[in-house]
Order: sequence, then C-alpha cells, then structure tokens
Amino acid sequence: MTLVMERPATETLPVEEAAKETGGLVILACSGDLERTWATLILANTAAALGKPVTIFFTFWSLFTLVRNDRGTTGENWMQKMLATMNPGGETKLKLSKMNFMGMGPAMMRSLAKRYNVSSPQELLDTAKEMGVKLVPCQMTMDMMGLKREDLIDGLEEPGGAATALAAADGSTTLFI
Amino acid sequence: MTLVMERPATETLPVEEAAKETGGLVILACSGDLERTWATLILANTAAALGKPVTIFFTFWSLFTLVRNDRGTTGENWMQKMLATMNPGGETKLKLSKMNFMGMGPAMMRSLAKRYNVSSPQELLDTAKEMGVKLVPCQMTMDMMGLKREDLIDGLEEPGGAATALAAADGSTTLFI
Amino acid sequence: MTLVMERPATETLPVEEAAKETGGLVILACSGDLERTWATLILANTAAALGKPVTIFFTFWSLFTLVRNDRGTTGENWMQKMLATMNPGGETKLKLSKMNFMGMGPAMMRSLAKRYNVSSPQELLDTAKEMGVKLVPCQMTMDMMGLKREDLIDGLEEPGGAATALAAADGSTTLFI
Repeated sequence: MTLVMERPATETLPVEEAAKETGGLVILACSGDLERTWATLILANTAAALGKPVTIFFTFWSLFTLVRNDRGTTGENWMQKMLATMNPGGETKLKLSKMNFMGMGPAMMRSLAKRYNVSSPQELLDTAKEMGVKLVPCQMTMDMMGLKREDLIDGLEEPGGAATALAAADGSTTLFI
Repeated sequence: MTLVMERPATETLPVEEAAKETGGLVILACSGDLERTWATLILANTAAALGKPVTIFFTFWSLFTLVRNDRGTTGENWMQKMLATMNPGGETKLKLSKMNFMGMGPAMMRSLAKRYNVSSPQELLDTAKEMGVKLVPCQMTMDMMGLKREDLIDGLEEPGGAATALAAADGSTTLFI
Repeated sequence: MTLVMERPATETLPVEEAAKETGGLVILACSGDLERTWATLILANTAAALGKPVTIFFTFWSLFTLVRNDRGTTGENWMQKMLATMNPGGETKLKLSKMNFMGMGPAMMRSLAKRYNVSSPQELLDTAKEMGVKLVPCQMTMDMMGLKREDLIDGLEEPGGAATALAAADGSTTLFI
C-alpha cells in the first residue's frame, strides 16, 4: 500500500484479501484543510486500488477542492473575490492558499510532501478520477457559494445531497472528514 | 453507561431497541462550527425522513447547540460569561456568535443560507425533534462546562456517555463530526 | 466502564450485551486538538472495556500525541523547534501546548477536567495500552514530520499506512476524528 503515487508497488495486501473486502468506502468531505484533503484523497485512492467502490461527497469547504484553477485565479464571482481578498499572499492555487495549517503554511507542507514523495492534492484528485472514484459535489453548497457546474473540474458525478450520501453509506465504511 | 461516574445507571437502550436499529444513523457531534452543525442536522433530518432511526450525541463544543437561548444571553455561569467575553460582537445567539467560519462570519453565511432556503440550525433542531431524532447530551461535557439539565432545551434524551454512543453505533452508519 | 480512572466499577452493560457486539472500533485520528484527542481516547478505552478490539491510527497532528515527552522538550529536530517557537507560553508538555481550544486554553480545560475526574490524555493513553488498544503511528506522517521510531513512546504497533487502516475498518465501527 502506498500513499505515495510514485511508488505504486509497495502495496502488501494480496489481491485475495482485497477481494474479500466487499464493503465500499464513502467519504463525506467537509473540511478544506490541507491535511484533511490529503487524508480524504489518500484513503480514497488506496481503497480504489484495493478494488473497493469509493464515493466522495464534497460539501462546504471541501468543495473548493473541485473548483477549476482558472476560476480560482480569475475570481469571476463574489466568493472567489472574497476568498482572494482573504488570501493576499499570492499562492498560485487558491484552494491551497486559504489553508494556514497551524502556522506552518501550505508551502512548507508541500515542500515536505515533495521531499517525501507524497503527491499533491491535485495529483491525487487526478489519480482518483483515473481509478474510478466517484466525486460528487454537494448541490446545496454549490447554491450557497454561488458555484455553477462550469466552475468545477471535469469528470464529476451529478451534484447530489444528503440523501445521496446516506444511500451510498449503507453497508460501506463511511467517514466524515 | 456513563463517562461520568456520578450517574452510573443512565444506560437506557433496551436490547430490543438496539436490535431494531439495523441500518440507523448515529452522529457523534463534537464540533461547534456552523458548517459542521449544519451537516450534522441536515444528515440527521434527511435520514429520519428516510425512515431511519437517528441518534445524535452532543459532546464538547457541539453541546452549546443545545443550550437554551435565554441561558446563553443571561450568562449565569462562568462558562457563559467567559464565552460572552470572547464574543463581544453582539450576536443575539451565543451558539452562533462564537463561530468565525474562515473569516466569512456567521451572519454572511446565514444570509446566504436564507437566500438559498437552507434552514437555520435552530429550525433544523426543531425539525429533528419533530421527526423523532434522539438528541443525547454528553454528561461528561455537561459536568466540565458547568451546564445543568435546565440549561438545555426541552425534548432531549437522558444524558449519556461513550458506552451509550458505542452501543448505538453497532450496526449503524456512524459519523464523528 | 470509565473514562474516569478513579471510579472504575460503574460499568452497567451486561457481559452478554458486550459479547454480542462483535464489531470492533477503528479510529483514524487526524486532529491534534485537545478535545478530539480526549474523544478518541475515551471512546477507545470505553470500547476496549466492553471487550471490543480497538485500533487507533495516528496521522498528521494526532501523531504528536505519541511523541515522547523528553523529545518534545528537548526539541532535537526542526519540527520540534518550529512548534516550540510557535508555542512560547511555556507549557511543559508540547503536545498540549499547541492547542488553543477556542481561546480557553488547555490549562483551564485540564483544570476543569481534573475537578470533574476526567483523566488527562497521557493517563488515557497509558490505560489504552494496558487494555490492549492497538496504537498505530502513520508512517507517511512520520516521514513528513521527520519523526523516527525512537521519538515515539513505547508499546506501539508497527507504523502503517492507509491500507492498514482500511483493512482494520472492514466490519468495524470506523470514525475519522
């Protein structure tokens, strides 16, 4: 198993064992913090690599993980503008720049992660899509934040709500992150 | 079951009831953040509307969701006074005013929510009670925070502890929020 | 069951009921906040007292719960030094001193907890080890934070990753805290 996409061959669970694990993984992602975004995507991709069906619901701050970079930098809606104002530091990626990470700053964490071969959230998100992880944006959050479907990245499921999340949760390992 | 040794006989779930809850939803609410309070109540009410048995345990900061408004404003104990001192902004509802919500402020979020027809935490809590969602305050937190039963809103279950929460969790979708 | 080590005999769940609860408890601990550390250890120890198998994975900030005190105070690596710089208040235990706890401060919370017979995180951790709770440090976090095995307390399982956590989660109540 690996958290580190550069080293895919470190998985030690045999396929048979993975096949026995019939239950899927459902993550209700709420936080926009870097470490929780990392945990969400690392768990999701690991479960997908084990052959499990995986679904992530992105609500509240986590939804910004799915905002297109070019929307984030152009700031074409009020939310982007406000968040940009709140984050004058000049980080190139808005969805990382709003994270303080207990004073360390996301830049330091990204540097550390790179040194230890941990993929960036963007890379992990790309991998998730390639591995068939279902990415579901929360419709209510989109409405509240003024985000439209075209503000979000490609390859997502149809927006859903709490009932969608709960239906997926039945019989699965379900985590609120 | 109790986390709090003063009331050892508060375990109330009969075996029959536990058996009936095969696919219920149990939320261990810990956070007092507005978005997580929202997520807790929206998931709980949605599950209840789907016919699932739902139990929410309110521990630590989430317990303030259950404090009566008139207690919050009068500040008759040290905790209320301290929290009031920490929140000089004049929000009418203490349990909302202590939330910063990443700099946006709860007032803006409430305004947005209203515009997009998302109920306030208070409305969602009222709905939860009407739909039979079991609301269990954490006895240990009550003791630590100096909160008495009469400081909390009506319609709650008997205060409980970790064992109560774990008994309810068996066989249910269980989320720590 | 008790969270409160001073009064161990108040457990009320019959042995039969405990035996029926075959599913274990798996906690993916991510947060370093005092109240979440408390919740993690109280739930873990309560479940262990009920006879359940319990595993805690310590990732990101939660890993500091497992750092030896003498490492924390000496600050022999850059992370310790940086965290020490961020926390000039002179708390004797680093892993508590980095918590703000919504302005109350950990000292006040510890004082309250003592008054109401709630054990400290350190006491709860010792109890967890005595009760057979499996404590698994996250290898990736150790790498990122520059923590070596000898920086951590004794009595831990071998460091593991996401696949280890997911394998343990199958069929168990699983909480992300």
